[in-house]
Amino acid sequence: MSLDWLFAPCAQPAVEQTEAARAHQLQLTKPPGSLGQLEAIAIQLASLQRTAQPSVDRVWISVFAADHGVAEEGVSAFPQAVTGEMVRNFASGGAAISVLARSLDAWLEVVNLGTVNDPGEIAGVRRAIIAPSTANFCVGAAMTEAQLDAALEVGAQSVRAAQRAAIQLFIAGEMGIANTTSATALASALLDEPPSCLAGAGTGLDAAGIQHKVAVLERALALHANANSVLEQLRCLGGFEIVALVGAYVAAAQAGIPVLVDGFISTAAALAAATIQPEVRPWLLFAHRSKEHGHARLLIALQAEPLVDLGLRLGEASGAATVVPLLRLACALHNGMATFEQAGVSNAD
Amino acid sequence: MSLDWLFAPCAQPAVEQTEAARAHQLQLTKPPGSLGQLEAIAIQLASLQRTAQPSVDRVWISVFAADHGVAEEGVSAFPQAVTGEMVRNFASGGAAISVLARSLDAWLEVVNLGTVNDPGEIAGVRRAIIAPSTANFCVGAAMTEAQLDAALEVGAQSVRAAQRAAIQLFIAGEMGIANTTSATALASALLDEPPSCLAGAGTGLDAAGIQHKVAVLERALALHANANSVLEQLRCLGGFEIVALVGAYVAAAQAGIPVLVDGFISTAAALAAATIQPEVRPWLLFAHRSKEHGHARLLIALQAEPLVDLGLRLGEASGAATVVPLLRLACALHNGMATFEQAGVSNAD
Repeated sequence: MSLDWLFAPCAQPAVEQTEAARAHQLQLTKPPGSLGQLEAIAIQLASLQRTAQPSVDRVWISVFAADHGVAEEGVSAFPQAVTGEMVRNFASGGAAISVLARSLDAWLEVVNLGTVNDPGEIAGVRRAIIAPSTANFCVGAAMTEAQLDAALEVGAQSVRAAQRAAIQLFIAGEMGIANTTSATALASALLDEPPSCLAGAGTGLDAAGIQHKVAVLERALALHANANSVLEQLRCLGGFEIVALVGAYVAAAQAGIPVLVDGFISTAAALAAATIQPEVRPWLLFAHRSKEHGHARLLIALQAEPLVDLGLRLGEASGAATVVPLLRLACALHNGMATFEQAGVSNAD
Repeated sequence: MSLDWLFAPCAQPAVEQTEAARAHQLQLTKPPGSLGQLEAIAIQLASLQRTAQPSVDRVWISVFAADHGVAEEGVSAFPQAVTGEMVRNFASGGAAISVLARSLDAWLEVVNLGTVNDPGEIAGVRRAIIAPSTANFCVGAAMTEAQLDAALEVGAQSVRAAQRAAIQLFIAGEMGIANTTSATALASALLDEPPSCLAGAGTGLDAAGIQHKVAVLERALALHANANSVLEQLRCLGGFEIVALVGAYVAAAQAGIPVLVDGFISTAAALAAATIQPEVRPWLLFAHRSKEHGHARLLIALQAEPLVDLGLRLGEASGAATVVPLLRLACALHNGMATFEQAGVSNAD
């Protein structure tokens, strides 16, 4: 498989729509700027969607699931079987993201890229199995080049499916026991910062557990110190679901579809995508500041101001989904409020 | 009119439902605590609504509008005619809160307590005219005792109407040119802190405008230094719509209806209500941290942690309305997620 597509140019936001939307906001019956971030979102969406009437009614959510070889180092509070079990739970409607997608009337695509505990064919789950798990990156590279290419492609396929459904906002999330360890390794490599500054509790490690996780990460980073391109860092330290996120973010920017980024792991993938292609960055909106320790640092690296900080640390795209109604209300206000002239309301002195 | 009702006891949240909801959250298929504030909200609503299945599908929004005598001191960036003009805009659907209420499928009650520029009878507006305006509180008390009692009663009437509609969440907002000046005066008196620490830009004052506002507030507070009960502070420094908010918050707590508090002005009223009756406090949820300068201080006084900080400073209940979908999603997750047992998902090691 060729990676040429990954370097194809991204779409460009419409500068003229930014200006028009900003001018429109100033005409609405409220003090200028008084709707704060809701105004900023509407203006940004108008620009990305190249329209005077931005909308995020049609939302697509892909959840990429995969297992991680590094789980055998004992870096998670949950057993590895949970990844496969949760794939079934996503599809049967009981997981957080299932409930959120239903509440939002959003498309939910569950993608199995390979779990040790394989749930098999399940209605509502796309099987895109690369391997039952990555390799333990404390011992060798997490994946082969062919696996890297395949995982990037799986992400891009989700964007193409979303595009066929004419969606207006793309969200992706992840599930994989031990994947905060993989994301932290990737973040350390991308930022060239020690894992002790970035590692967090994941699904619920205590202080000793985090200390052990840091030690595992230090071994892995020493082993892969020669990985000096983003793609090589992804291959050595990533997970199939994290690489799929990277592929999806690049493909969405190429397709001109706004992306709402979830938490720590998604943001690590977003940083990788924006490092591969800086023109990905304008297409990324950031939903929330996660409670996972390293997220704040990744947001700074991306110069991202997330909309909310609700102490979330679940993943699965749940934080991004939670924020969708705020985007919808921002659009409703932008499109639905009366102007001073229409309403016969006096403007500021 | 008697104020006896104001001191009738408040309802009590159900401690046993708090415990049951907390235990239920621990059974849901996610790491414990990983949904952060969304878990806390669901638990709080379960307790306030005395149910295992909290819901805020049925939301009531009252917007109280009234004019302020202190506007003649030149403390607002907008002309006084805007209050009456906005009453019309609320009813005809063009204001921010009109758009939000429509998007949320919420009841919207607009209450005119008296505007200088009287829009007259309007479909969808409750006329509860007390006077065209309060008196300028730099010269004398803002209102008479009878006016104070009447304004409190107007707020309580809204809660009774909401109760007849069997609503699950009560929101109130305000509109009134110069009402951040009134709310700041009230906050200064309640907190015994100088207005220079609390005054902000309101609808858009510049630094000189804020300095002038502070001077006006200092004169008013000196004039009413003897007002040493909350009710007397409300009478001397309040506005009809602010007093209606106080009456509504007390009545909601008495009726056992959870309240979602909006921004600076609403929070000043909430502080007054919780000072009159400390048992009001458990019924108040706080939606957002406003950009209006004094809001953070009021939230601290109420030991309130609002859900979001979106740089909003519009009032009209718009910030509270914006946050309603987050409460709805919190309930959907609490009620709709599968437990580890139901989903066959392994729990933490």
